[in-house]
Amino acid sequence: MTPEDLFVMDAQTLEYLRSPKLYKPSACTPLFLACYQKKDAGAIIHTHSQNAVICSLVFGDEFRIANIEQIKAIPSGKVDPVTKKPMALSFFDTLKIPIIENMAHEDELIDDLHKTFKDYPDTCAVIVRRHGIFVWGPTIDKAKIFNEAIDYLMELAIKMYQMGIPPDCGIGEEKKHLKMASP
Amino acid sequence: MTPEDLFVMDAQTLEYLRSPKLYKPSACTPLFLACYQKKDAGAIIHTHSQNAVICSLVFGDEFRIANIEQIKAIPSGKVDPVTKKPMALSFFDTLKIPIIENMAHEDELIDDLHKTFKDYPDTCAVIVRRHGIFVWGPTIDKAKIFNEAIDYLMELAIKMYQMGIPPDCGIGEEKKHLKMASP
Amino acid sequence: MTPEDLFVMDAQTLEYLRSPKLYKPSACTPLFLACYQKKDAGAIIHTHSQNAVICSLVFGDEFRIANIEQIKAIPSGKVDPVTKKPMALSFFDTLKIPIIENMAHEDELIDDLHKTFKDYPDTCAVIVRRHGIFVWGPTIDKAKIFNEAIDYLMELAIKMYQMGIPPDCGIGEEKKHLKMASP
Amino acid sequence: MTPEDLFVMDAQTLEYLRSPKLYKPSACTPLFLACYQKKDAGAIIHTHSQNAVICSLVFGDEFRIANIEQIKAIPSGKVDPVTKKPMALSFFDTLKIPIIENMAHEDELIDDLHKTFKDYPDTCAVIVRRHGIFVWGPTIDKAKIFNEAIDYLMELAIKMYQMGIPPDCGIGEEKKHLKMASP
Repeated sequence: MTPEDLFVMDAQTLEYLRSPKLYKPSACTPLFLACYQKKDAGAIIHTHSQNAVICSLVFGDEFRIANIEQIKAIPSGKVDPVTKKPMALSFFDTLKIPIIENMAHEDELIDDLHKTFKDYPDTCAVIVRRHGIFVWGPTIDKAKIFNEAIDYLMELAIKMYQMGIPPDCGIGEEKKHLKMASP
Repeated sequence: MTPEDLFVMDAQTLEYLRSPKLYKPSACTPLFLACYQKKDAGAIIHTHSQNAVICSLVFGDEFRIANIEQIKAIPSGKVDPVTKKPMALSFFDTLKIPIIENMAHEDELIDDLHKTFKDYPDTCAVIVRRHGIFVWGPTIDKAKIFNEAIDYLMELAIKMYQMGIPPDCGIGEEKKHLKMASP
Repeated sequence: MTPEDLFVMDAQTLEYLRSPKLYKPSACTPLFLACYQKKDAGAIIHTHSQNAVICSLVFGDEFRIANIEQIKAIPSGKVDPVTKKPMALSFFDTLKIPIIENMAHEDELIDDLHKTFKDYPDTCAVIVRRHGIFVWGPTIDKAKIFNEAIDYLMELAIKMYQMGIPPDCGIGEEKKHLKMASP
Repeated sequence: MTPEDLFVMDAQTLEYLRSPKLYKPSACTPLFLACYQKKDAGAIIHTHSQNAVICSLVFGDEFRIANIEQIKAIPSGKVDPVTKKPMALSFFDTLKIPIIENMAHEDELIDDLHKTFKDYPDTCAVIVRRHGIFVWGPTIDKAKIFNEAIDYLMELAIKMYQMGIPPDCGIGEEKKHLKMASP
């Protein structure tokens, strides 16, 4: 990817200041804009991750996982009262990511996306059922870290589910749920 | 791969204009020719993808998957009445790929291949049972995109199948089929 | 790997003509020698492939898979009466690879290896239970192709087994064995 | 990774002699120090391996696997009476790795880590439940080999578990445990 491959848009007027010759703007542009404008995103990652699709088939309107170390890579939405820096989730927290229904075209997802901004003010991601996931962060580096951590957690949740363990079950409760006797 | 590694054939006379020293023509040559001649293919990809083999063992004479975003990467065979450009499948469509029986030698597949051209005039791929898949497109770039999208969809279909979910089940029907209670 | 990393041994006297400074000869040396001497091998590949280990746990004294296109990459041991070239297995053949028991040290496998040379005169591979696999060929390129094809077939066989399908079941018989109803 | 990315600490005074500009010391520093001081480690590897997390969910306070060739890559803690070199586990041994409970912060793991040093004097690794694994060795090369071998063994153990085979079951006992009839 080179600078010439990027679209450059004026954040005020929403006019394209520069467009690559080969590409047309993503159908997700209104969704990206919503994240930039309402969530102070510095970068947004969108994938068709199979882990996101499977989680959306298996779980309801929310993806939940708890008590896994990797959760500590995800921001909690809280700010440290002393350092004023954003705080991450703790090991004992439950990560909750909303799952919205897919539509024929990406721009039709905009209303549900705005709804999740209201219902999940601290989320940095939205799963779209049978489609994939949107993950954002203050910088591209942070967005990449959040996306990798969430994909790891969705992959782990599917493995837990397949063994009968609810991904948000309490510490020490997992053995009760195991589908097979522990050898 | 260098230009010297390629066979060059006259499309009219079917004579080889140039042949690499090290290789002999693929046993699939008659199948490739059929795709070039009857389907206007610009490139054909053939793999022994395990996802194709497993789908051919699990499903009958057709691979079907519906209501998954990635389906939108596959051409529908229809042409946009305004832009005159080929249209892709929509999210609500069902992708159908024919599965034909394998034979001792690739050239014996030619009759069944021609039959799928008639029965599935819009398909850009044919799965060969216990063997693999053929995918074609107007250019090598398009063929590669179609092949990657179909492989993703076959991989996803197997995961859905293993969880009890028919890959072509209706939106919202998936929970009914889940082999395990949603945690 | 550079030429300096290789041991060079006189095939007659079994003396090392050159040894790398950093390494000691593999504990598998007697097994490699047996393949060079008795099987006309030009190269031998040894891995701890998890697919080989799982196959050795699941199957008895023989790994069998039939009616899969990739089998055609494996030599049959027969020679074409016209071209005098080695012939591969056909799609309708059954690939059979012996599985021998592991021992405390690699050199103790030598008797069982010689036994498989007698019982499976055409095999180009031996699986060692709970250990891995040895694959040989007339050249390093061929050995690599055989190893990759066998690993593909063992991986596929495990997937078939997990779905209830015996890897050597007849064409069209697979649906009878499926553990779940075809969706 | 460049030398500038590393922290340099005085092993006696525990003062940082040099710190990279961009990073802050790992929260695992007290755990690393304990391994350097009490276990003569030359290097420690810490991962959030999903294989370690799944093993910690499925097994109790100890991960055990036996009679697998790859075990021979792990040190036994014994020293060869003749060569005075450290001896590896044998094929017939059982590898045992302790599993400790996770805490809110890495430094709180220190007491349990010291306890495993006492209870498992020969272990070169500790699994932390719902978190990951710590692996150490006399050099970074050895630590890397141990970590790769243990990850391979944990991955294999999960596959065995999913097929119903206890990873530490006796040789020849595996068929009794198989959840599905051998085809």
